[in-house]
Amino acid sequence: MSSSHDDQSARSELTAFPSPSLPSPLPQSEVLRAAYRARAAAAELAPLPRTPKDEALLAIADALIVRTREIVDANAEDVARAREAGTAESVIDRLTLTRERVAAIAEDVRKVAGLPDPVGEIVRGSTLPNGLDLRQVRVPLGVVGIIYEARPNVTVDAAALCLKSGNAVLLRGSSSAYRSNQKLVEVLRDAVGGAGLPADAIQLVPGESRESVQELMRARGMVDVLIPRGGASLIRTVVEQSTVPVIETGTGNCHVYVDAEADLEMAVRILLNSKAQRVSVCNTAETLLVHEAVAEDFLPLALAALAEAGVTVHADERVAAIAAAAESKAVVVPATPEDWETEYLSYDIAAAVVNSLEDAVAHIRLWSSGHTEAIVTKSQAAARRFTQLVDATTVAVNASTRFTDGGQFGFGAEIGISTQKLHARGPMGLPELTSTKYILTGDGHVRP
Amino acid sequence: MSSSHDDQSARSELTAFPSPSLPSPLPQSEVLRAAYRARAAAAELAPLPRTPKDEALLAIADALIVRTREIVDANAEDVARAREAGTAESVIDRLTLTRERVAAIAEDVRKVAGLPDPVGEIVRGSTLPNGLDLRQVRVPLGVVGIIYEARPNVTVDAAALCLKSGNAVLLRGSSSAYRSNQKLVEVLRDAVGGAGLPADAIQLVPGESRESVQELMRARGMVDVLIPRGGASLIRTVVEQSTVPVIETGTGNCHVYVDAEADLEMAVRILLNSKAQRVSVCNTAETLLVHEAVAEDFLPLALAALAEAGVTVHADERVAAIAAAAESKAVVVPATPEDWETEYLSYDIAAAVVNSLEDAVAHIRLWSSGHTEAIVTKSQAAARRFTQLVDATTVAVNASTRFTDGGQFGFGAEIGISTQKLHARGPMGLPELTSTKYILTGDGHVRP
Repeated sequence: MSSSHDDQSARSELTAFPSPSLPSPLPQSEVLRAAYRARAAAAELAPLPRTPKDEALLAIADALIVRTREIVDANAEDVARAREAGTAESVIDRLTLTRERVAAIAEDVRKVAGLPDPVGEIVRGSTLPNGLDLRQVRVPLGVVGIIYEARPNVTVDAAALCLKSGNAVLLRGSSSAYRSNQKLVEVLRDAVGGAGLPADAIQLVPGESRESVQELMRARGMVDVLIPRGGASLIRTVVEQSTVPVIETGTGNCHVYVDAEADLEMAVRILLNSKAQRVSVCNTAETLLVHEAVAEDFLPLALAALAEAGVTVHADERVAAIAAAAESKAVVVPATPEDWETEYLSYDIAAAVVNSLEDAVAHIRLWSSGHTEAIVTKSQAAARRFTQLVDATTVAVNASTRFTDGGQFGFGAEIGISTQKLHARGPMGLPELTSTKYILTGDGHVRP
Repeated sequence: MSSSHDDQSARSELTAFPSPSLPSPLPQSEVLRAAYRARAAAAELAPLPRTPKDEALLAIADALIVRTREIVDANAEDVARAREAGTAESVIDRLTLTRERVAAIAEDVRKVAGLPDPVGEIVRGSTLPNGLDLRQVRVPLGVVGIIYEARPNVTVDAAALCLKSGNAVLLRGSSSAYRSNQKLVEVLRDAVGGAGLPADAIQLVPGESRESVQELMRARGMVDVLIPRGGASLIRTVVEQSTVPVIETGTGNCHVYVDAEADLEMAVRILLNSKAQRVSVCNTAETLLVHEAVAEDFLPLALAALAEAGVTVHADERVAAIAAAAESKAVVVPATPEDWETEYLSYDIAAAVVNSLEDAVAHIRLWSSGHTEAIVTKSQAAARRFTQLVDATTVAVNASTRFTDGGQFGFGAEIGISTQKLHARGPMGLPELTSTKYILTGDGHVRP
């Protein structure tokens, strides 16, 4: 705890502040009751300066280390249940918490404490012609709901980012990680409470049923935003059914376009990195488009590299013909229209030859999820045109699609990658977890 | 038209660009077909620089003047129908277009042409540690849907703001203004097409039925955002039923809080201006909260001023008692709980005495719509605490609530006042009609 007088008094003032009372009668739903408590906690967090929030984050990091044994034990129950249920080893790996992983999670929380606090930043300000002072100031969103899948590290990451940005968080993890999440949230709440902030700023949504997700999605007015993190079907469900505003994240059908004027060796490196450096993530490439002028030179090199990386190529007729002529060792199968819209998240890539940059753009416009689109070209004009015409969170010129990431962008942390246009687009760091308010100061100004 | 070579070539390049083709078979719904055409137009508008957009806006302003007679005649049909239907004169007044009003609308379009173009603005940029250049650039949202009530001037305002910000717009006005809106949109489209931009950037949603609104609300993926402008029930319907992302606008249950340390004469001026300068708008005050320390001195002055302005006071017991003791001439009726949440939009105000600033904040937190909250105080500490604790689009210190307005804030124009926290909060100008994209430039960068 800081001994700073200012921070202490800010906190004691806040403790004295009457929390919004729970409605009477209490809502039947446990989820809504949790949301009411989160609102009260959010009202306490909103005006806090940086220091008490950072102290709570450091207390969380310490508690994660001190209580690692409890966490690992609780996690072992989830892992045992998953194993009994015949869950795939890759999923079990993502679910598993070891002493080292908990230490890494704690270290990430310390990093969040070290990031600048977005709250209170003056986004713009001016003195109006009539002498009124106008300031637009960043404020927390309020109550953030996160709906996510197996990884229990998201529980801590999301809670830390929300706390740092002054938001209360309602966490709804997958039922397969329920024991782990329960224990983690217990540790987090104890640490936050011990640091003098409201424990209700971090809550696990009660219940393991699908109904609790439904209730969360209908808690409009109580929850300010829902952020689904996980597979495409989870995200689609939330986007379509929620009456709470949603930030859509993470579906990535990303393209690499190799232009007529590409450096072909660079193009191979970028293609390979975009597709095969890590196949299971949203910023991995799923389609290769090649300008016809370089197709016969480029594709044999590309197919050889893809073959070596174990990537199956879903080829249009022109790619298939070049592969056959080159006697490529690559596994080449015919592409169907579905391939153009598939986010494989596996060692597969769709590939087509296009007649022009414009045709590449048209293909992308038709099929892309608007996540990340890359062009490889030596031509300044082609780079300029591609970046102007392609509408996506990120357009990469002579760089891998894999760079679309809050960490890579220097944000220090990431709550997800928004693929929508409202509020936030692309990797979301702490500022994207805020709203703003205007503060208008006069000395008796009235409107004529 | 400009003779600038750059603009001409930008445009001719775009004309050559293949529009996204209409799906085959065409969607049955006329609304969806309009949305498809709007998407194609939006793709053409997005990369345009400022000059061709401004030229189209000036062409619109000219056309409104040249074709005023047609517009006024079409409007006369709507007005005649409204009169036959026994519509209130205040509504008919808002519906009516005269030669002078059309000239004023045209002048507003010229003003929009004079505003800076938000598109292309670099919001942030840096060189990453690995040498990649990262820029976050403003881009248009795409297709904006506006659902609005009787005033036909909104048709032109909204179209002009969307065009300036590079968006296509789908306009769904009220059926009572259908003839006027049809004619206005015809004039706008002719002018835009004549200036070499796609006429489909401005479209009236076909049909006068409620079904067309329903279809617009379900056009997720085709329409990027819906902005309802109008009464509370219209806004609630859109917010609850739309699967397209919505920006909630305009409900204002605004408060004036007179602090223990207020300058009482200033407080009367601010109260009167906030309540009675124009009662039918969202930034007008609907509730007065008075600190008990000044209630007996302030309320007699306030009640006298409100009485003179013809305002009925819906008073809690303490306000009523002071009014009685002061033998106030004001019309005072007992407040019910409903009064605390009512947006009167009339010569009515709710009034209560509170024990403390904290109680005022708690009252506001419970009942406010989060639009604009004002405090009148000489105390720096009270002003600071109120602005920290109150969560609203705008918190005014010693200033009227009526200043929350894009024009007053110096934005030059306003598409509405957002009362939500995501994307935009408070008066929305041109930047609020944009999203962003990241442009990442390297020279063969791959992720290690």
